Amino acid sequence: MLDAVRWHAAGPDPLPGTLRLLDQTRLPGEVVYLETTDLEVVFDAIRRLVVRGAPAIGIAAAYGLAAAAQHHAALPGDAFVAAVAADAAYLETARPTAVNLAWALRRCLGALRVAAERERRAPALLHGLWREADAIFHEDVRMCRQIGEHGAALFTPGMGVLTHCNAGALATGDFGTALAPIYVAHERGLAPRVFADETRPLLQGARLTAWELQRAGVDVTLICDNMAAQVMREGRVQCVIVGADRIAANGDTANKIGTYGVAVLARHHGIPFYVAAPSSTIDLATATGAAIPIEQRAASEVTHGFGRATAPDAVKVYNPAFDVTPAALLAGIVTERGILRPPFAASLR
Amino acid sequence: MLDAVRWHAAGPDPLPGTLRLLDQTRLPGEVVYLETTDLEVVFDAIRRLVVRGAPAIGIAAAYGLAAAAQHHAALPGDAFVAAVAADAAYLETARPTAVNLAWALRRCLGALRVAAERERRAPALLHGLWREADAIFHEDVRMCRQIGEHGAALFTPGMGVLTHCNAGALATGDFGTALAPIYVAHERGLAPRVFADETRPLLQGARLTAWELQRAGVDVTLICDNMAAQVMREGRVQCVIVGADRIAANGDTANKIGTYGVAVLARHHGIPFYVAAPSSTIDLATATGAAIPIEQRAASEVTHGFGRATAPDAVKVYNPAFDVTPAALLAGIVTERGILRPPFAASLR
Repeated sequence: MLDAVRWHAAGPDPLPGTLRLLDQTRLPGEVVYLETTDLEVVFDAIRRLVVRGAPAIGIAAAYGLAAAAQHHAALPGDAFVAAVAADAAYLETARPTAVNLAWALRRCLGALRVAAERERRAPALLHGLWREADAIFHEDVRMCRQIGEHGAALFTPGMGVLTHCNAGALATGDFGTALAPIYVAHERGLAPRVFADETRPLLQGARLTAWELQRAGVDVTLICDNMAAQVMREGRVQCVIVGADRIAANGDTANKIGTYGVAVLARHHGIPFYVAAPSSTIDLATATGAAIPIEQRAASEVTHGFGRATAPDAVKVYNPAFDVTPAALLAGIVTERGILRPPFAASLR
Repeated sequence: MLDAVRWHAAGPDPLPGTLRLLDQTRLPGEVVYLETTDLEVVFDAIRRLVVRGAPAIGIAAAYGLAAAAQHHAALPGDAFVAAVAADAAYLETARPTAVNLAWALRRCLGALRVAAERERRAPALLHGLWREADAIFHEDVRMCRQIGEHGAALFTPGMGVLTHCNAGALATGDFGTALAPIYVAHERGLAPRVFADETRPLLQGARLTAWELQRAGVDVTLICDNMAAQVMREGRVQCVIVGADRIAANGDTANKIGTYGVAVLARHHGIPFYVAAPSSTIDLATATGAAIPIEQRAASEVTHGFGRATAPDAVKVYNPAFDVTPAALLAGIVTERGILRPPFAASLR
């Protein structure tokens, strides 16, 4: 698969090593990797969206913390733990709202503190820290595969699938979430035909999804967002699969802006609409989608999204980054544990 | 109103004069006018979309023919008619599929030939030719106003209206078609709040609709196409109005790609969806939308729409220029004669 985020060892042992990131800000024009052990560079890479997608950010933060910790390995054990804790606290501020970032860093730090109760040597603590980061990576790979296996059961040969935004290999450690069933179906020779919404304003579908599917040899066709209805009407897609940023306890799903519209169009055309996401995305503390705040983003994403002005100066813009698809429009939620079916209030619990 | 296409007289008399076009290829960045009596320049302006929108193209062709005919005014009458006929035949090829282009040129030429049966002097024939062009312009202005008056009856104070693409002042001699009711409602102090879909791939909504409404002082908010569903869900629009390229005898309506999706979303949210178009757009010879061919356009419009690549090289693209909205999704068709209601098969006749 794609190596959006990886640990790169200098020799046969995992340490010393570096965090290696595919620079997604340069796609699809250039395939450039960033390799570093510098905390500032890791911070900047997360902030600038060199790495994006909740799972990939978590992995990058964990490996990045371990990579930077190598510079503290000559310290006494206590000082090593304190230095890593300071690094983690700093790294967590790179994208304050990214749940996986904080989660991965706290998990690594927790494991380090437990280890420090019986181990005083920094090099050994460093190895433990790296193993925790590596575990996060491998759990993500396994999760992607499992979502892919469960989701691929939905596929028939040559089936048309529409997806929105990018919940693919570029957003995770391996196969992605929404794209995982497509990759598994492709591996099995089911030859899925994918339609990728370009996903304005930031064009993740055009820049990332089309790129990674094309690179993997999957049959992918790029469309503008406003063509999805026509593609459905012409009978070109039999299924929609998208990712999720958060799933409420009743199944209401927050995802990239435009997802809700696709769900309405799918319902109108009698096409099943699936969400694919790890169970960690399910937030039972959020009762319904009404409790999920919708982030508003800068007008310039819409008016200057392509390097030059495409709208008049000072025009008013409404630019919600996400929308919420009501559970009633979902045919199922594909997680690493299987496909959840309605009523979701029961199946999610 | 905006002067997208006008006759510009040198003095108090209409002749001599020039065709004056607002260069829409430079919007919204620059407001530049093109003024000419040169047939080649008129041809090029129509071909390059300096002027666009069916009614505006017809007016530009008619005035352009008269402007160029001034160069033939020293010829004998017969030779004058032959020269104008040759000019018209050439101009008609600037955009072969634009119905109004051929229609306007044939109408002007027909009037010229009738006049030539009793009038042999070229200067007098030239005046007649210009009057026919001017009549086309004034009929269009009247048509826009009438659509605006009828459509404005749908408005309540502060009502939210969503529109797609540009069927506005830039596409006609005056108020536009879909935007005419908005302009009239604005004149009447009803303060409509307009949401303009940016309309990928060519961004007519962002570049043209947002520009002309903003310039007229109308409250306009630009959104990406994939935000329309969310805007509807939030209760921000109470009505959708779009233009039409062709209306079949049963009311099925061909319009810019994305229109059909907006109609489905409007239906889902219980929002009335209106088409506004001159009755000349109604094609009783076309029984249903199934008989309307959908033009496919170049992949580069989607992948290189903004001067740089936004998708991977050689990616497959599906780029239909139009879609057909089934009559069943229309609440009404606003024409210069009034608002037609379902069943359209009866009301259109």
